[in-house]
Amino acid sequence: MPFPSSWFSPITGPDHDATARARTRQDQLTKPRGSLGRLEQLAIQLAGLQGTERPAADPVNITVFAADHGVCAEGVSAYPQEVTAQMIANFAAGGAAISVLAKQLDATLDVVNLGTVAPTEDMPGVRNEPIGPGTANLAVEPAMSLAQLGLALEAGDRAAERAASSSCRLFIGGEMGIGNTTSATAIACVLLHQPPTELTGPGTGLDAQGIEHKQAVIKQALTRHGSTTGPADVLASLGGFEIAALVGAILGCAARGIPVLIDGFIVSVAALVAIRQQPALRPWLLFAHQSAEPGHQSILAALDAQPLLHLGMRLGEGSGAAVAVPLLRSACALHNTMASFADAGVTDRDTE
Amino acid sequence: MPFPSSWFSPITGPDHDATARARTRQDQLTKPRGSLGRLEQLAIQLAGLQGTERPAADPVNITVFAADHGVCAEGVSAYPQEVTAQMIANFAAGGAAISVLAKQLDATLDVVNLGTVAPTEDMPGVRNEPIGPGTANLAVEPAMSLAQLGLALEAGDRAAERAASSSCRLFIGGEMGIGNTTSATAIACVLLHQPPTELTGPGTGLDAQGIEHKQAVIKQALTRHGSTTGPADVLASLGGFEIAALVGAILGCAARGIPVLIDGFIVSVAALVAIRQQPALRPWLLFAHQSAEPGHQSILAALDAQPLLHLGMRLGEGSGAAVAVPLLRSACALHNTMASFADAGVTDRDTE
Repeated sequence: MPFPSSWFSPITGPDHDATARARTRQDQLTKPRGSLGRLEQLAIQLAGLQGTERPAADPVNITVFAADHGVCAEGVSAYPQEVTAQMIANFAAGGAAISVLAKQLDATLDVVNLGTVAPTEDMPGVRNEPIGPGTANLAVEPAMSLAQLGLALEAGDRAAERAASSSCRLFIGGEMGIGNTTSATAIACVLLHQPPTELTGPGTGLDAQGIEHKQAVIKQALTRHGSTTGPADVLASLGGFEIAALVGAILGCAARGIPVLIDGFIVSVAALVAIRQQPALRPWLLFAHQSAEPGHQSILAALDAQPLLHLGMRLGEGSGAAVAVPLLRSACALHNTMASFADAGVTDRDTE
Repeated sequence: MPFPSSWFSPITGPDHDATARARTRQDQLTKPRGSLGRLEQLAIQLAGLQGTERPAADPVNITVFAADHGVCAEGVSAYPQEVTAQMIANFAAGGAAISVLAKQLDATLDVVNLGTVAPTEDMPGVRNEPIGPGTANLAVEPAMSLAQLGLALEAGDRAAERAASSSCRLFIGGEMGIGNTTSATAIACVLLHQPPTELTGPGTGLDAQGIEHKQAVIKQALTRHGSTTGPADVLASLGGFEIAALVGAILGCAARGIPVLIDGFIVSVAALVAIRQQPALRPWLLFAHQSAEPGHQSILAALDAQPLLHLGMRLGEGSGAAVAVPLLRSACALHNTMASFADAGVTDRDTE
């Protein structure tokens, strides 16, 4: 299979020496030890991942992967499928939430269209890398072939390579694909051994009746594919092209030494798949926010992840991760530029 | 009494027309309604407070009020009292957490010394406005006279006036004063009718024995001053100069139409006092973070406040509020610059 090498090659851990030096530095800054709470741990964690005593959350690369989903034929979304391609144009034009946030962060925004029902034109900032006109309907057949899965993983790996070659210090993966909470929820049900009734949510805004129907569609998919085991088979049976590309991008970033700030429900499911393939991936992931999508809590618990923000966001696109970037930047600025007790001539409690 | 007019004059509420226009705008942006969670509400709230459909969290004024506390004679802090003046110098030199954050936010940072045991020299960015060499020991006598309280409130009101005259759109009050969690906790006990055992925490880092002693000191203070009623008497009996100045600054900002982003434990206690004096103040306050100081939760509950961040911070200086500013800026950028469904040619769910 033409899978990227990051799918198989061992991922190395953080730099323990840099971690230790960062911890020592943090303890000398003019504040009671621990008084910056999680910002202290964040700076130390980033230091270890970036192999430096002085970490940075800049430059940031945001790559939004988009694709359509055959399961939309089952009526699982509050929005029509044409919105996927329309939103790709909106990303390129600068009008979408992630466009606004990327600009605010001075981050690179790449959009990769892996296959929509209506192909998108060439637009600045959009890469058309179609694998097919969306996935097949996972309720009745495998969403994609293993060959298509390989292409999606490779597309994600190329995004990681672009990030690495632009000296990116932090990667954010985002997604757009009408119907993709259905795909992500089905994957989560298989990997966490939980029923659709526990993990299915409203996505972009289904009502109670819509959620019940979505549960039934996912149940049907699980009946067909639920005995699949292994990350590749689960992804091929139930995935979206953009979810598979996220898995490839996450693994590819970790393999290249780039920390990944995980967005909400969909990206967390991709992270879960990636960790099942490569458990050594876990230290490379920071979790930005807890989505309003109810199943996210179970996924975060399975990943032992404590997200930074709880703002009730549920948009996707990488938007929750983008909103959390300034916290990482504040953590780094404090860590890197605060004065030490000795330098500032401030009496530390230990010297009383 | 020479109290500032904002202590007595009625505070006007938000601009309901601007709120309504902002809500309409928010509902047309290219995202499922509600999918930006609290960021949507924040933008709409700021719009109403600033009287415009397009709010901003820039420019920001951060004023840190500092003073010493006579109650330090009782051994209630993990740090020696000289640290208050040393940290004022650190603020001015740019080495403290709030200095780093203010620079990152491109915010104005004013430091006001209301009275330390050792007076501070003239330094750029520091205003020396001494009321006395710290407060008296609240465990055995009133912390300050009503005349001193008036001076502290006036100093706070002048900070609000400086913010207003520099076209500030958001005010953050911070504090520095070794011993001031003892003062703030005592005030909270009186205003919330809760015992010191429920509200007393480690402050800058007391151990269990230290906390028990601090509780005993607060209990002694409450025995002496616990029958005081009314915000002015409570502040004079148990306050710090910097806490009283914060009350004056918060009221002064609201009176001048400037929203206030409330920091942690100490500033929340100042907000509680200010609201007891002027209940119409409440809509002007946004709450940045929940402090690790355990009593903060009770104070937030009394204020019906849901803070934006839960990062376990407990430093003071306004640092928790400064860390939350980018969330407000993201909320404003999204609100002000995202495309509408109509402009972007994206199909809304209502048009299906």
